[in-house]
Amino acid sequence: MAEFNEFKFIEIASKIFKTTKKSVIAGAGDDDCAVVNIGEKFVVLTTDNLHEKADFPAGMLPEEMGHMALAVNLSDLAGTGAKPEFFLFDITLREGMTEDFFIKVLRGMAKLAKRYDVAIVGGDIDLGDELFITGFAAGIADRYILQSGAKPGENIYLTDMTGKAQLSLEMLFSGKDREEIPYASKLFTPVPRVEEGIVASRYAGAMTDISDSLAISLNLISRKSGVRMDIFERDISLDHLTEFVDKRKALELFLYAGGDYELIFTAEESNIGYRIGEVRKGKGVYFVKEDGDREKIEFRGYSHF
Amino acid sequence: MAEFNEFKFIEIASKIFKTTKKSVIAGAGDDDCAVVNIGEKFVVLTTDNLHEKADFPAGMLPEEMGHMALAVNLSDLAGTGAKPEFFLFDITLREGMTEDFFIKVLRGMAKLAKRYDVAIVGGDIDLGDELFITGFAAGIADRYILQSGAKPGENIYLTDMTGKAQLSLEMLFSGKDREEIPYASKLFTPVPRVEEGIVASRYAGAMTDISDSLAISLNLISRKSGVRMDIFERDISLDHLTEFVDKRKALELFLYAGGDYELIFTAEESNIGYRIGEVRKGKGVYFVKEDGDREKIEFRGYSHF
Repeated sequence: MAEFNEFKFIEIASKIFKTTKKSVIAGAGDDDCAVVNIGEKFVVLTTDNLHEKADFPAGMLPEEMGHMALAVNLSDLAGTGAKPEFFLFDITLREGMTEDFFIKVLRGMAKLAKRYDVAIVGGDIDLGDELFITGFAAGIADRYILQSGAKPGENIYLTDMTGKAQLSLEMLFSGKDREEIPYASKLFTPVPRVEEGIVASRYAGAMTDISDSLAISLNLISRKSGVRMDIFERDISLDHLTEFVDKRKALELFLYAGGDYELIFTAEESNIGYRIGEVRKGKGVYFVKEDGDREKIEFRGYSHF
Repeated sequence: MAEFNEFKFIEIASKIFKTTKKSVIAGAGDDDCAVVNIGEKFVVLTTDNLHEKADFPAGMLPEEMGHMALAVNLSDLAGTGAKPEFFLFDITLREGMTEDFFIKVLRGMAKLAKRYDVAIVGGDIDLGDELFITGFAAGIADRYILQSGAKPGENIYLTDMTGKAQLSLEMLFSGKDREEIPYASKLFTPVPRVEEGIVASRYAGAMTDISDSLAISLNLISRKSGVRMDIFERDISLDHLTEFVDKRKALELFLYAGGDYELIFTAEESNIGYRIGEVRKGKGVYFVKEDGDREKIEFRGYSHF
């Protein structure tokens, strides 16, 4: 949603909602999720809003819409290392949408919820001009990881190479059927990296999920942690993309496309994820080519259709 | 939103989302809010969705929209006796809505949040065809009160006589300015009964807030508690309405109009609220006239414009 300068609006909101409440560890604008204390527990709260025109690709099934609405929220929680526990949703149906459609959306949600033992405990149902599904998820973290915790000397890990969702979307746009596109499941039923987030939270410095783009997530970690981040060409793989597009386009998708819902985290070492770079003193995010040349990785991305 | 049989859809959802998760005390469809255990605490979760066409009366200021979006969620929490703690929101702006508009909406939220020491800890911002504000609130209850706890022998209490919001709305529709209508604040800046909910939660049997109508809230308590509820004509006052409309219309507004955000609760006795009736063995909700005649109070209401 960087299209209309969402980040400027987030900045405005975080100023207006600045809080001194003691139970708030990370509030509005501090991170991708809120982290609060309830009793002795660290509770992570997040919300994500999907709407038909921007977020549901053509041909998406109602079950997949339900899946997606939950998945994007679980991905947010995964980015802090929280175990997801509870989910609520608001659904705005268009006039004429059937009970059958509604049931299918809910079943898609229920199936994914079951996989992670998430209880869907409430919601609100409404009628409007466009289909909206807004989700709200709460999780519990033994150790929560923010975007601000990266330290020079750490390595940078990525749970899977990015660009697959947008590649698939563009192939869909170009007229291909969903059966013909290579990573349909990344686009229609992305799997949030819940287990990986919990494992990485035991040792990660900084972590976040990637919804807008790898570039945006890296830049957020760099800014909030006050560090430089170097991504090495020699450590990444674009094979999953160069099978379908040229190398230049592949790199663009890898860095700047969204919708993959992978996790990026920093750690001294990790048994999970692919090491793609290093945290250094300084600022900015760079792509270090095999010949040693460095290029800035910009703060930009796209994840909506 | 009883218009499109929201209650049928809620029933469908509660079947699909039935859970055996131990930390869930009240899940989807059980009550107006969800109640869950986090550590040793009872945490109450709710969500409410407002959209421009159905929920914001003409002439409503952006600050009031922000106020309203938070107020309706705090009212839900108040209905369980929870102290509100955290709030998140999703706002969908229409193309062309200014930064200034956005800031005003947020300030309206922030002002009400401050009054109850609620921290607004996150949100999501989007563009769409209609202005939407979805809120999620979390509160903590020492003793939570559900709709299912009414017991024969208890009295029925109401925090204030209902019908004011809809009366004001209808006067607005009839061409009056907002300065001329009698209960403008009920319509534009309803105050959630947070303190009253906390006080009543110490001794109430059943409780809920009234968003759709007094009749719907009474019927929900009656059904879920398995009790009959008698409302006595001699115990209610319609003076606040008969000043403007005839007695028949006043009673219709009192019982069936929504938007007042009062609390209704049952208790042996209470220092707060007006006693308007009694809980009996049996089923159904009745209006007992001064002459002793009884009329069924139906399961219906309206609260949207």
